[in-house]
Amino acid sequence: YSKSRKMSPPFRVVLHNDNENRREYVVQVLMKVIPGMTVDNAVNIMQEAHVNGMAVVIVCSQPEAEEHCTALRGNGLRSSIEPASGGC
Amino acid sequence: YSKSRKMSPPFRVVLHNDNENRREYVVQVLMKVIPGMTVDNAVNIMQEAHVNGMAVVIVCSQPEAEEHCTALRGNGLRSSIEPASGGC
Repeated sequence: YSKSRKMSPPFRVVLHNDNENRREYVVQVLMKVIPGMTVDNAVNIMQEAHVNGMAVVIVCSQPEAEEHCTALRGNGLRSSIEPASGGC
Repeated sequence: YSKSRKMSPPFRVVLHNDNENRREYVVQVLMKVIPGMTVDNAVNIMQEAHVNGMAVVIVCSQPEAEEHCTALRGNGLRSSIEPASGGC
């Protein structure tokens, strides 16, 4: 088993609720920044962040997660990443 | 600062995607098990677990989170808990 990039553990990109950005803007940013993001998924994520304080945006490799997190922050959203350690 | 229960760090109850349970059943269980769960929120959580593999159900104290997780599992859903470490 090589320690190649493909074997790296998955990371979650998390969106945190904020009181500054309008709902429509959050949806727009998610669709602009996250590849393959649908409007339905973006609305769900925005809603869940609003209700729970946070929502998982996408699960991907750590380098991709860092990139997405930076892009979300660059558009004024609150985001962080964390290991998707499964845990079930 | 006392180390009372109210000061305990928050935990997330996580729902994991599964391929056994019908969508309607997952929504029903969420509404039965989680206090204050609305149908809109339950549908969103079910959808997000389907799309991302997991979704945050609720953020609460560790004892409550353990109780909710046990109740979800007792109804055949896949659930785990984890510290809601913020991290933003």
